[in-house]
Amino acid sequence: MKISTLSIGDELLCGQLTDTNAGTIAAALLAEGLRIQRHLAVGDNDPDITEALNDLNRVSDAIIVTGGLGPTADDLTSRAAARATGRRLVINEEARAHARTMSGRLENLIVCPLNDKQAMIPTKSALIPNPNGTACGFHLMHDGCFMFFMPGVPSEMIVMLRETVIPFILERVPHKRVIRSVSLNLFGPCEAEVGELLLGIARQEQGLTLGICVTFPWMKVTLRAEADNDDAVNNLLAPAVSTARERLQEYCFSSGAVSMDDVVAELFRERCLTLSLAESCSGGLLSKRITDIPGSSAYFYEGIVTYSNAAKSRLLGVSAELLASFGAVNSECASAMAKGVRLASGSDLGLAVTGIAGPDGGCEEKPVGTVFISLAAADGCWTKRFQFSGSRDEIRTLTSWTALDWLRRYLLKKE
Amino acid sequence: MKISTLSIGDELLCGQLTDTNAGTIAAALLAEGLRIQRHLAVGDNDPDITEALNDLNRVSDAIIVTGGLGPTADDLTSRAAARATGRRLVINEEARAHARTMSGRLENLIVCPLNDKQAMIPTKSALIPNPNGTACGFHLMHDGCFMFFMPGVPSEMIVMLRETVIPFILERVPHKRVIRSVSLNLFGPCEAEVGELLLGIARQEQGLTLGICVTFPWMKVTLRAEADNDDAVNNLLAPAVSTARERLQEYCFSSGAVSMDDVVAELFRERCLTLSLAESCSGGLLSKRITDIPGSSAYFYEGIVTYSNAAKSRLLGVSAELLASFGAVNSECASAMAKGVRLASGSDLGLAVTGIAGPDGGCEEKPVGTVFISLAAADGCWTKRFQFSGSRDEIRTLTSWTALDWLRRYLLKKE
Repeated sequence: MKISTLSIGDELLCGQLTDTNAGTIAAALLAEGLRIQRHLAVGDNDPDITEALNDLNRVSDAIIVTGGLGPTADDLTSRAAARATGRRLVINEEARAHARTMSGRLENLIVCPLNDKQAMIPTKSALIPNPNGTACGFHLMHDGCFMFFMPGVPSEMIVMLRETVIPFILERVPHKRVIRSVSLNLFGPCEAEVGELLLGIARQEQGLTLGICVTFPWMKVTLRAEADNDDAVNNLLAPAVSTARERLQEYCFSSGAVSMDDVVAELFRERCLTLSLAESCSGGLLSKRITDIPGSSAYFYEGIVTYSNAAKSRLLGVSAELLASFGAVNSECASAMAKGVRLASGSDLGLAVTGIAGPDGGCEEKPVGTVFISLAAADGCWTKRFQFSGSRDEIRTLTSWTALDWLRRYLLKKE
Repeated sequence: MKISTLSIGDELLCGQLTDTNAGTIAAALLAEGLRIQRHLAVGDNDPDITEALNDLNRVSDAIIVTGGLGPTADDLTSRAAARATGRRLVINEEARAHARTMSGRLENLIVCPLNDKQAMIPTKSALIPNPNGTACGFHLMHDGCFMFFMPGVPSEMIVMLRETVIPFILERVPHKRVIRSVSLNLFGPCEAEVGELLLGIARQEQGLTLGICVTFPWMKVTLRAEADNDDAVNNLLAPAVSTARERLQEYCFSSGAVSMDDVVAELFRERCLTLSLAESCSGGLLSKRITDIPGSSAYFYEGIVTYSNAAKSRLLGVSAELLASFGAVNSECASAMAKGVRLASGSDLGLAVTGIAGPDGGCEEKPVGTVFISLAAADGCWTKRFQFSGSRDEIRTLTSWTALDWLRRYLLKKE
């Protein structure tokens, strides 16, 4: 079954609002083995909506429309739907009663006329109940194509989609295909390197596809299998995923929705180790990411953001001579910070970051993006120099990812 | 000129990635008085891309395409573009040289063959330079329609759009309407309150519209004027903006792209005051936001993230008895932290945050979302209790916004 989505709203076409409904619908359908063929967005005006419906009708068996069913004058979807399908627009008593009930007014009070507008539905349509809002949706069949119309409010739309639209479609899909996907999350390699590592894994002709999605500074590799039944899908997917894992090795930090921060948190809990942080150029970002995770107080003692050299000496015990002679951005200072915060806090691990996030402050020897990361533990202290590039924000983001990835790789070895 | 956008990528049609390029392009064009007519998204497959290009060609004078120009096998846009426009796909030497340079390899070393794929461009096309990535874009004219092809990576796309695509289109627009908008950024009021405050300001029939966009936890109010020339636009816009500013008063922290963090940074610079932070539940988020701003080392001394009570005593001098008797989430502890960090660091201001970000740790008296913020300065120490609601992430975000807004309001009074 070829399914399209259509989002309606001027705010989507002037960049004021990002269209999240398209993605929500796509994900909900995919979980049922249904795919979106194309997604279209047009503004709140009659000719564009009508034309969009006609165009999508030509290439789709079903169209899922969101937006433009509101109570105000700029909401034109019902009228355009009637026009595009050669129907009249009439008051639907059930939809009117629903709008009255939902707007919390009693039958014998004056009903706001704007809400009656939400009860105007094309003839020969069936209602889509909306438990969370005043505007009912509706669906109809035109020219061999099912058309579903729902409000654009995400919290209303998703319930209507799940309770009415998806079951309706599933009943009419003759041969349901099973689609399943597994995503692996990577940090470290560039896209071309991942492409080379995974060469030959996808077998499109058998229904196994591979997608690589770069979301700075990490990457998501998705293997998706499509077949007639569960077994066939698993037989396609499982060996491909295990081959991919083998080839990607430690680049792969997690699968699915598990973030790098989650992985590091889980490892700290499993290994029963504790952490303190000393941050200069990352300015608290690393502490923020560690404490984003609920329960982090179990392994995180403290984070010291030492922006001034005085703070580096007073709080971390970095020697004033070292700072005076060589400055704060060097291997010695990084390891003194890591050891200092570990010692002062009594944590098992001390991690320190010092560098030049820019845009100013670089020099020939240490350009913007020079970052030293140091990890102090009972079994040693290791310090590395990194050269990142990009904006201040990108350099700080890369710094925090690199530091967390280092913690992850260290903790993985501590079984 | 009728302009459409086309986003290409399987990840957009399975809900894995939200398409932000469509909105970015729309906003950038609107700033130049150009509107998007429709936006289409299709997956990474030849027939869909070809059909999409043909369909949009029929209704558009220009199509701006993003995505599918990457180095891997699932990136098919160039081939589909060639097919849809009846061109051959050939190696473009300029694009190849660019890809080689950008991938940081020398000419005489082996070039990764996948990057050569990015140099395959349809004949009779012009390159769109990409200063930030390996894949050049290209544009061509087919059947009366300009088609622009760019990579989907947002940071690469936006530069190519601004530097090449928009100037190219503007040169070819016969009658330009002037559209100008001013956005005011608000923190504090709810949407309904802003709606009431701004009642009657928009005058749609004259070309002056008002949009309110809620972006948790702040809000953007956009006044947009459209007319034939600069003067008419300014005569509509200027008085409306000044009325809006008067009515919104201190709710409005900035206009345009100036963030709350920028405003606070600018005030610290202007007032020549310095800051240190003591954070518990915000876990470094506040330090991170302060140090997001280049040059923050001029007024920011240090941030202490004290997750353990031991750290609160050792680093901030909070009395162990207080912590033992009343815990860390109370007004006394917050003010001790603020005074403690101010004293230890020698900064003019000390700001402290302690609270319960959840999801666990709340009780009847102090439910999740209870947050104490304290500001210590030469002229006094003030502490307030807040009750936020939402997820851990939302509570931490609200905490950091409220603290920064407090700093802003304090600094505004210190002229």
